[in-house]
Amino acid sequence: MKFIGCDCDYQAADIVVFGAPFDGTASNRPGSRYAPGAMRQESEAIETYSPYVDKDICDLRICDDGDLELPFGNLANVVDIIEECAAKVLSGGKLPVMLGGEHLVTLGAAKAVFAKHPDLCMIHFDAHTDLRDDYLGEKLSHATVIRRCWDFLGNDKIYQFGIRSGLREEFEWAKKHTTLQKFDFGGLDEVISKLGDKPVYLTIDLDVVDPSEFCGTGTPEAGGVSFTALREAIEKMGKLNIVAADLVELAPQLDASGASTALACKVLRELLLSVGSESNA
Amino acid sequence: MKFIGCDCDYQAADIVVFGAPFDGTASNRPGSRYAPGAMRQESEAIETYSPYVDKDICDLRICDDGDLELPFGNLANVVDIIEECAAKVLSGGKLPVMLGGEHLVTLGAAKAVFAKHPDLCMIHFDAHTDLRDDYLGEKLSHATVIRRCWDFLGNDKIYQFGIRSGLREEFEWAKKHTTLQKFDFGGLDEVISKLGDKPVYLTIDLDVVDPSEFCGTGTPEAGGVSFTALREAIEKMGKLNIVAADLVELAPQLDASGASTALACKVLRELLLSVGSESNA
Amino acid sequence: MKFIGCDCDYQAADIVVFGAPFDGTASNRPGSRYAPGAMRQESEAIETYSPYVDKDICDLRICDDGDLELPFGNLANVVDIIEECAAKVLSGGKLPVMLGGEHLVTLGAAKAVFAKHPDLCMIHFDAHTDLRDDYLGEKLSHATVIRRCWDFLGNDKIYQFGIRSGLREEFEWAKKHTTLQKFDFGGLDEVISKLGDKPVYLTIDLDVVDPSEFCGTGTPEAGGVSFTALREAIEKMGKLNIVAADLVELAPQLDASGASTALACKVLRELLLSVGSESNA
Amino acid sequence: MKFIGCDCDYQAADIVVFGAPFDGTASNRPGSRYAPGAMRQESEAIETYSPYVDKDICDLRICDDGDLELPFGNLANVVDIIEECAAKVLSGGKLPVMLGGEHLVTLGAAKAVFAKHPDLCMIHFDAHTDLRDDYLGEKLSHATVIRRCWDFLGNDKIYQFGIRSGLREEFEWAKKHTTLQKFDFGGLDEVISKLGDKPVYLTIDLDVVDPSEFCGTGTPEAGGVSFTALREAIEKMGKLNIVAADLVELAPQLDASGASTALACKVLRELLLSVGSESNA
Amino acid sequence: MKFIGCDCDYQAADIVVFGAPFDGTASNRPGSRYAPGAMRQESEAIETYSPYVDKDICDLRICDDGDLELPFGNLANVVDIIEECAAKVLSGGKLPVMLGGEHLVTLGAAKAVFAKHPDLCMIHFDAHTDLRDDYLGEKLSHATVIRRCWDFLGNDKIYQFGIRSGLREEFEWAKKHTTLQKFDFGGLDEVISKLGDKPVYLTIDLDVVDPSEFCGTGTPEAGGVSFTALREAIEKMGKLNIVAADLVELAPQLDASGASTALACKVLRELLLSVGSESNA
Amino acid sequence: MKFIGCDCDYQAADIVVFGAPFDGTASNRPGSRYAPGAMRQESEAIETYSPYVDKDICDLRICDDGDLELPFGNLANVVDIIEECAAKVLSGGKLPVMLGGEHLVTLGAAKAVFAKHPDLCMIHFDAHTDLRDDYLGEKLSHATVIRRCWDFLGNDKIYQFGIRSGLREEFEWAKKHTTLQKFDFGGLDEVISKLGDKPVYLTIDLDVVDPSEFCGTGTPEAGGVSFTALREAIEKMGKLNIVAADLVELAPQLDASGASTALACKVLRELLLSVGSESNA
Repeated sequence: MKFIGCDCDYQAADIVVFGAPFDGTASNRPGSRYAPGAMRQESEAIETYSPYVDKDICDLRICDDGDLELPFGNLANVVDIIEECAAKVLSGGKLPVMLGGEHLVTLGAAKAVFAKHPDLCMIHFDAHTDLRDDYLGEKLSHATVIRRCWDFLGNDKIYQFGIRSGLREEFEWAKKHTTLQKFDFGGLDEVISKLGDKPVYLTIDLDVVDPSEFCGTGTPEAGGVSFTALREAIEKMGKLNIVAADLVELAPQLDASGASTALACKVLRELLLSVGSESNA
Repeated sequence: MKFIGCDCDYQAADIVVFGAPFDGTASNRPGSRYAPGAMRQESEAIETYSPYVDKDICDLRICDDGDLELPFGNLANVVDIIEECAAKVLSGGKLPVMLGGEHLVTLGAAKAVFAKHPDLCMIHFDAHTDLRDDYLGEKLSHATVIRRCWDFLGNDKIYQFGIRSGLREEFEWAKKHTTLQKFDFGGLDEVISKLGDKPVYLTIDLDVVDPSEFCGTGTPEAGGVSFTALREAIEKMGKLNIVAADLVELAPQLDASGASTALACKVLRELLLSVGSESNA
Repeated sequence: MKFIGCDCDYQAADIVVFGAPFDGTASNRPGSRYAPGAMRQESEAIETYSPYVDKDICDLRICDDGDLELPFGNLANVVDIIEECAAKVLSGGKLPVMLGGEHLVTLGAAKAVFAKHPDLCMIHFDAHTDLRDDYLGEKLSHATVIRRCWDFLGNDKIYQFGIRSGLREEFEWAKKHTTLQKFDFGGLDEVISKLGDKPVYLTIDLDVVDPSEFCGTGTPEAGGVSFTALREAIEKMGKLNIVAADLVELAPQLDASGASTALACKVLRELLLSVGSESNA
Repeated sequence: MKFIGCDCDYQAADIVVFGAPFDGTASNRPGSRYAPGAMRQESEAIETYSPYVDKDICDLRICDDGDLELPFGNLANVVDIIEECAAKVLSGGKLPVMLGGEHLVTLGAAKAVFAKHPDLCMIHFDAHTDLRDDYLGEKLSHATVIRRCWDFLGNDKIYQFGIRSGLREEFEWAKKHTTLQKFDFGGLDEVISKLGDKPVYLTIDLDVVDPSEFCGTGTPEAGGVSFTALREAIEKMGKLNIVAADLVELAPQLDASGASTALACKVLRELLLSVGSESNA
Repeated sequence: MKFIGCDCDYQAADIVVFGAPFDGTASNRPGSRYAPGAMRQESEAIETYSPYVDKDICDLRICDDGDLELPFGNLANVVDIIEECAAKVLSGGKLPVMLGGEHLVTLGAAKAVFAKHPDLCMIHFDAHTDLRDDYLGEKLSHATVIRRCWDFLGNDKIYQFGIRSGLREEFEWAKKHTTLQKFDFGGLDEVISKLGDKPVYLTIDLDVVDPSEFCGTGTPEAGGVSFTALREAIEKMGKLNIVAADLVELAPQLDASGASTALACKVLRELLLSVGSESNA
Repeated sequence: MKFIGCDCDYQAADIVVFGAPFDGTASNRPGSRYAPGAMRQESEAIETYSPYVDKDICDLRICDDGDLELPFGNLANVVDIIEECAAKVLSGGKLPVMLGGEHLVTLGAAKAVFAKHPDLCMIHFDAHTDLRDDYLGEKLSHATVIRRCWDFLGNDKIYQFGIRSGLREEFEWAKKHTTLQKFDFGGLDEVISKLGDKPVYLTIDLDVVDPSEFCGTGTPEAGGVSFTALREAIEKMGKLNIVAADLVELAPQLDASGASTALACKVLRELLLSVGSESNA
């Protein structure tokens, strides 16, 4: 089963969607490993056409390449496998769109993109800072992933939006090393202007959305942004040079009604339409 | 068990509420067949008094006449039984308010109302266009129901609000045959002015409400209207000559907390207060 | 297990949090008895630091003193045990913060506070009036609790916000005896100015929050306030002389995803930061 | 809505079924208040005909008289209302069959039956002894109900089967005052022989059934009897002079699949067929 | 995604598994349409090797050919599509194994098999008789399916086991037209001897299993057979000339823990091993 | 919160219960990390007295020492922390009883016990062989844990019961290296006789119990043993020299009714009574 409208052949595709079903460092409720499969199944219930932007993903060349097989219990190996997969997609001149899994999976893909684009910037939508240096002594964790990306991206390359939870120390650290917008997308237009055509990795932790609209995630944080706000932000990403993207932290087992999974499917559709316009121009 | 405050005798009633517990064409998660029963039970937990409009449904003459017995697997028959029931209510000079079930049930009731009011207009609140000509080859479906109503109502009689999902072809078709407002209730006041005292059928697919407030439905669509917006729209219906109404697509099994069912009960209370003021004047 | 950041010794504490796990008069879905335990467990998933007010509850001296043992089936006794506990906390010069349980538990604590502060006022955030004189003949009930508090507080001492459900008679009664703001926090600033430094009991029925953000409660009422609005109202409470507070009516079993319980934890964190600033000044 | 096959007029009925939807003393997971309503709804899915005994409840004269309205929070009053109802049924020469609710409801009905039959015996199927003298100081509780019945029935009148949980003290007390069979129905035939045509109250706490077959109860106890064993025991009750019966402790909210509620419906059908044969002879 | 171990090419396969995801006539809780997909996903969690019979389905040539697309709301069409699919499999000399969906799907497959084998017999494991002549006036229904098969198979060709629910009239009818074993598999050995090498269609309604082991079905019936008993009966089918088989009535949404879906997967594995031994001999 | 009846001081205790809330290698549904906490909470609903063996755990000296803090994502570290904890308990002359968590946690505890008892034997109750040499390339996994124990225990020291799932290769391997009883406890008495007073580690994977009685586990396997059979086997363990024990693989989130968690609590009670008799003699 493929995500609706994403049945282009791998070779012919401009965009390659793949799943990274890993949630091994989840410290709260696990289950994001089931997200890619649940999204594919639920995608049958949405339309490929977006009335928001009057476009249809059937008009793009997208290949859903299925899921990676990831060994639970070996974090370095998990990151390596993801990096390798993303590198292969990039080497074919295609745009990788990864479906987590937990947020740690971003590290593998970002490494591969950085290898190709040393001037890479990152836009990060999330409820959480994810800037710890370690979590219970471990360097690789969903709670440290943006810090690990900073290790190679460096200062002033990471732009964080929607953040509403973290240690005081993380917020302090961010003041010196990243651009962090609390609670919402304020300042996004300025960032877009500033970035111009620099290569950008877009990572969307779906828990940036308010739990009222997206309860299917392991660590729900009240006070989030709306789907509408997220969709508008994603539409704006079409102005940037997005070279890779991911959607992480849907946990379908916590989504009793299916509404969170359906929302994630729509976010993916809008994301594909936004980043895909560029490649189709 | 009757819906709270709706225990008037059938003969004496101005409004007759009845259930059409059918979900046989549901292509996504079924279960709307359980809506009328669940709403009656949950209605014990709401009040008959509305602090919004300072009215009480106990002051109206409403009969909850129970549920129709509908044969699963024979769509034409289902539509006929509903049509017959609505016709009987109308012939007694009463106003029918039907509780679905899935949206296909609207077809039966609308046919009966059209037989009495050949100049009938329809106001349609929904997340979905429901304008396909067929669904997997079938003419009768929740996904075609408004198209089937158009078959007899004709052009420029159907006013759609809140729509946010459909095929590109459906949105195109609507431009020529109906009045379609995407996403919200924009333009409703103008439509009300235009309709004046023409007879109007009001069909409310509850999935017009955002899944954050109403997750208990088979095909949740992010980006919907709020209860508050829907309630205000319903209050405005009191200015029109509503001759029949329905509420469809609550699926209680998807409503783990009961909040969607409770919301549906309140929508019904506000709807009864809105359409009932007229008959009590 | 203690609520995160609340592990101060009882003697040294400025604030004492305790649970009142009672839901014996719940007429709709019961289960609020499980709230204190669920909140303690879920609190591990939030942070002690609030990015809203840039404070951390670890900087306060808060003791989580565990749960009272309450005999189901003897209401008067339940109220007495709670009163005794609150009185003890107050006698030590500490500020009691009680976690319900259903709303009836407020009666016990309010009695104790009133005994110390005869000029006590009450601020009441709720979806429901709770002003019935009896419920099915019983004087002690979640549906009568504010009326029972009025019995000793008297006229013009109770300020109600967010109310959107009740009998017509309750709304009428409120016009003469309390100050009642329907639907939202309108007028809160004026009340704060008016109250000045009078002693205030703050009781928060979490169902004041919209069910979209807080479905984990027995009687969900559409059309409620947002977490953001509630949080802002709570922050404003820091200007008042809050001498006791409670949070009631979380029913964790109705919270399939955990999002309501997480929201309640954040409300408690913000409440502690708001009332705690005073005691730390 | 009535239990399937139980729509005889009250006056004409030989058996009167009524609900006692009370769970106010539940110390573990509450929710048995919803049992009578859930059983009526689920009863549509079973047949009135029993292939076990080749009888049909449609051939009996049974009236489902609906539910009592019971005030939460006043135990003595609850017991009184139930006693009054049962007494009225008995005074009409009819056999009362009560649907709980929690086990405390048995006390009211047993009192009424004892008033008519001073030589009353009781057969008690349960996982729990229910023989405490008080529970957290309260005399009236689901955990004390059989002890309260003993207060008036006296020694050697109570026969307990299937018991597998209790305090050591309760098991010791039972040795002197009741006949208690641990774990199963061993010795039931002897008890039947001994009782002859004495009047017997049969109380079935459905948690006597193993949680594998009946998980929908507040305090599941592994190691229980099977439906088949319970059904056979119930069939044997037809040899006795059963003058009243009850079924208690189904908690439908814990029954995610509906299987426990369906089992309870079948137990009721078999019970009615067993005690009804007598009255139809 | 394919059922584990069933990835043989269609042409090379001896057995073809296909899904018939239809539940349009379900009168009780629907949802069996989701069974084939859920079984494929859950199959990853079982092993292909059976320690019961010391065989592995990887040693057979089995093709999982995916799901049919079935139009909800047109029963005759649904039956025709299934018949056509089964006929195609049979015409290739392969053995069809169909995964429901509800029991009505059996009609289509049985028709196709009967067309090839006019002396076809049927073995039917089920909790329900399924022998009604119509259901609410409809001839095609899950409740009439075996009666519809009898229409062409004729008397003394149908062998029913495990039956424990139905109308008295159905049990009476069965005495004249089928061989019906109540409650268990008693007499199965005799039937096997009698049937010899006649062609047999095996239809397994999974609700024949007790709801304790298999709660994930729309109409659970207490008092069923165990997995162990079913597995042994299936193993015995290896002695017969099974020419087609199906598994129906798993409803995964009612299977909160996944245990019913996992059981269904094992039943399918054992069924494949039983019927597959023959074709591999 | 402590497990009921286990509130002895650490120093004075004969038995130390501790939790190892780790499920990081779970390849199927995760969640066993929540088992120790859920068991402590649910333990309030069982009794400390066992009517099976007429003993009470209150008569033993048992300390519930809480949970280890285990770093997700570093398997070797997890195993080391557990080993250290068990070693400390053993060095105090106490008997460790560990609550998983997934089965991998056994490795840490078994290492510690082996260090003290080089002639250690292991009794293993499980549905699964757990004898793989690696799982997706990883040596440390729930699926390899008994193989890892064999690495140091050696041949003919491991006795497996209840096994009903595994690769053919695992069953073959077991024939040479362990004693494996398929499906049930057959031969347990002989093993007990043979072991005499040798030191024994008892590891109970609760999925050995049939999913009908224990659905709250990640990989349910139909055809398991009953609670009654497991309890009897545990009682027999009292004849052996059990020097350490564990209970693993309860996943409370899959246990919608609470029945599995309650069963696990009873298994722990019976286990404590069985191994505790020895130390109290």
